[in-house]
Amino acid sequence: MLRAAARALTVSSLNPKVLALADHHLGGLVARRAQSMQQELDANPASHPFSEIIYCNHSNPQSQGQQPNKFFREVLALCNHPHLLDRSEASFMFSSDAITRAREIVGFIPGKTTGGYSHCQGIEGLRDAIAAGIASRDGLPSYSEDIFLTDGAAAPVHMMMHLLIRGKKDGILCPIPSHSLYTDSMVLRGATLVPYYLDESRGWSVNISDLKKQLDGARAKGIDVRGLVVVNPGNPTGQVLVEENQCEIVELCKNECLVLLADEVYQENIYTDQKKFNSFKKVARSIGYGEGDISLVSFHSVSNGYYGECGRRGGYMEVTGFSSEVRGEVYKVASLSACSNISGQILMSLVMNPPKVGDESYPSYRAERDSILSSLSCCAEAMVSTFNSMEGMTCNKAEGGISVFPSVRLPPRAIEAAEAMNTEPDVFYALRLLESTGIVVVPGSVFGQVPGTWHFRCTILPQEEKTRQIISRFNVFHEAFMEEFRS
Amino acid sequence: MLRAAARALTVSSLNPKVLALADHHLGGLVARRAQSMQQELDANPASHPFSEIIYCNHSNPQSQGQQPNKFFREVLALCNHPHLLDRSEASFMFSSDAITRAREIVGFIPGKTTGGYSHCQGIEGLRDAIAAGIASRDGLPSYSEDIFLTDGAAAPVHMMMHLLIRGKKDGILCPIPSHSLYTDSMVLRGATLVPYYLDESRGWSVNISDLKKQLDGARAKGIDVRGLVVVNPGNPTGQVLVEENQCEIVELCKNECLVLLADEVYQENIYTDQKKFNSFKKVARSIGYGEGDISLVSFHSVSNGYYGECGRRGGYMEVTGFSSEVRGEVYKVASLSACSNISGQILMSLVMNPPKVGDESYPSYRAERDSILSSLSCCAEAMVSTFNSMEGMTCNKAEGGISVFPSVRLPPRAIEAAEAMNTEPDVFYALRLLESTGIVVVPGSVFGQVPGTWHFRCTILPQEEKTRQIISRFNVFHEAFMEEFRS
Repeated sequence: MLRAAARALTVSSLNPKVLALADHHLGGLVARRAQSMQQELDANPASHPFSEIIYCNHSNPQSQGQQPNKFFREVLALCNHPHLLDRSEASFMFSSDAITRAREIVGFIPGKTTGGYSHCQGIEGLRDAIAAGIASRDGLPSYSEDIFLTDGAAAPVHMMMHLLIRGKKDGILCPIPSHSLYTDSMVLRGATLVPYYLDESRGWSVNISDLKKQLDGARAKGIDVRGLVVVNPGNPTGQVLVEENQCEIVELCKNECLVLLADEVYQENIYTDQKKFNSFKKVARSIGYGEGDISLVSFHSVSNGYYGECGRRGGYMEVTGFSSEVRGEVYKVASLSACSNISGQILMSLVMNPPKVGDESYPSYRAERDSILSSLSCCAEAMVSTFNSMEGMTCNKAEGGISVFPSVRLPPRAIEAAEAMNTEPDVFYALRLLESTGIVVVPGSVFGQVPGTWHFRCTILPQEEKTRQIISRFNVFHEAFMEEFRS
Repeated sequence: MLRAAARALTVSSLNPKVLALADHHLGGLVARRAQSMQQELDANPASHPFSEIIYCNHSNPQSQGQQPNKFFREVLALCNHPHLLDRSEASFMFSSDAITRAREIVGFIPGKTTGGYSHCQGIEGLRDAIAAGIASRDGLPSYSEDIFLTDGAAAPVHMMMHLLIRGKKDGILCPIPSHSLYTDSMVLRGATLVPYYLDESRGWSVNISDLKKQLDGARAKGIDVRGLVVVNPGNPTGQVLVEENQCEIVELCKNECLVLLADEVYQENIYTDQKKFNSFKKVARSIGYGEGDISLVSFHSVSNGYYGECGRRGGYMEVTGFSSEVRGEVYKVASLSACSNISGQILMSLVMNPPKVGDESYPSYRAERDSILSSLSCCAEAMVSTFNSMEGMTCNKAEGGISVFPSVRLPPRAIEAAEAMNTEPDVFYALRLLESTGIVVVPGSVFGQVPGTWHFRCTILPQEEKTRQIISRFNVFHEAFMEEFRS
């Protein structure tokens, strides 16, 4: 007791904003149970009625067997040890365009060693390449001084929240369901979350009149609503917004003086021919809104797409429509961590400027890219049709992103059973699924959902073989579950 | 005007804590002037009475010509493109121990591609290696569960401030002069800085009775002082604390229930045979204080030492003496950015577990390391003796770290001239130095100094040739400056 009493810190004396963060990062009940089951299986392969845990709870494709893009990794290896560029053997071990690209990148860097701090926005030559990639994507100019290279997409979201949030009277409009990054970042800074529900009945689109109602309601309560988060393609919901819907969002932000925070990290994950990705910047410019009309931040990262380089922590934000004084303050916040990691910066530039037709690596690059995207697309389609065929389940088409978010109407007796165990019904369902099948999904309550509805997020896996296993085990489980709890 | 009025954000509506950050990140007056002079020289090499700007204002050795450690970069290249490990040519291009090490590291990683998110504290096998390195350094056990791998040392400092600071009534004891990381992190969270002055007349040691006085004074004003920052070896001051002084600091933290935040990033930069680096953990254990007695966080990074891999953003904090509940909250904050970048994690493990006697790379590794450290040591010694020989200047020995922090007694007429220009006298001095010589130093006012004293930070450069130039130009400048402003 005496020893414990001497501690400098107790939980009760910690920053309450940290305590207020949800513990789903600790894994939540479902992920924690998966972890202990993994240990049980490692110790005794016969401890469960399945041989492996299948992680459909997060998108971390390379830890599940997806191979990194060869061109990207060749360039990275050469940049990390530039002496390789001087070796004659290099031409046998690396493709010629990887060598050319690595020489070019190393040439951008003062000292040419990839070991120095860069400009706090990132290496200028890499930002030039990214701006050129954005310009080519949108058919509109983009400028390297608008690009801030960052450690993944989480860092710039935290930066923007730092700038925007003064206290609990400041609010941000945030989609529900949504990724915890935004809600956590707001909780940590004591902001007021102003939720707007995505419209599940219309393919998870944004209902502008509902959005306006939420905004007006928050303002009536004295909340200074400062920005709007939009995630397109959606996470966990997998929708791709149509241009008309995007226009409405842009109009609202312009008219209501909201900073538009556009999470566009899944811009290359599109699985439908009927839709294409439009950046919010392109949409804003297409309706005539320029730099002076709308403040817009677009977030991107190397953790998604066909590349899935999550551990690299590369990302950028493109910041447009801010006065130079405000821009100076963005710069000040960015400079607090000196600069983002150089490997991540390099990868981000490769993602935005991949091999072109005629380059030695182009055929293999293209084949790797297409194979991963087509595998993700097949998996998404198979999952959606499976979930839609199950009793009480409906699932919107996965048009993009990396997951599906089916709704499951749980029988009243299942809800009672969950309540008796003091768990949310969707957590109860996910735990039962895990115990029966080894499949890990994230309960919808982690992302938020319309009260009285229950969902789960299931990530799309890059391997078709696993998808077949998931579908077959899931079918058996769900049928038995519904049978067990039928009234 | 109408366009400007439509902006969602103005400086006056930003978070005032961001506005309160000092603008020295924007470079301050001196660094901004250096930047424009660099552009002038690039455009016209004859525009100034010197041919190059010499950056003694920050420690970024690889951008100034220091070569990265070959073994480290071989391992990094192989880990970044593990297919190289399967190629027969690899044995001609990489040392055998780099190949072995890379295989071992890739083997630690689920999926084996170095592209997945890791455990949010970092890859377990790498943490094991780091804990073993700490254990071997201190002769004491260290545990991988106490290690949090981070993006440089800035990220974990911000994490700890997030946990400790609830508002402006919370204070942290922080040395003056000190690196802006700590002060910025406090300003951003609205904490009260409780300064304690390092004792320049006693080699920048910590005067415990003064420290106690500052603590009591802050408490008397109602400040809840929660922690103490200590930087050893010092930055910008370059001292290495003696063990007795460290014991006093540990005793104070224990008795006063303060979390000891130990910046130990320069632990390998020691330039004197008379002193050695002792970690605060080792000191605490040596006087009998265990886990239950003192809460201690030690920060380290790959940006310093002989490696100087600043752009890699690798770092760790070792967290000891926290209850498991508090540890859970540390974990929650760490998980907000998913994980730190894998290249940085790998490099941090190499720094703490470098080649050993008998390994193929050991001789070259050792030669590179010794050459850099000896060059830094020579540069430090030459600078200190030069500064001490100049009129009105005194400079403590650079026992460690990466910079010296001489005091300069400016003539009253120079102080008047500075006031007439509305600048701090130390900024005035640094600007005049820059205009005359092209040498960039950081004015002491950026780090804090005893009122009425003036200093500048001059980083030690890894090249002796440049040091000679600096010394000769500095001598000519200082003599002329003192002559010009003599009363």
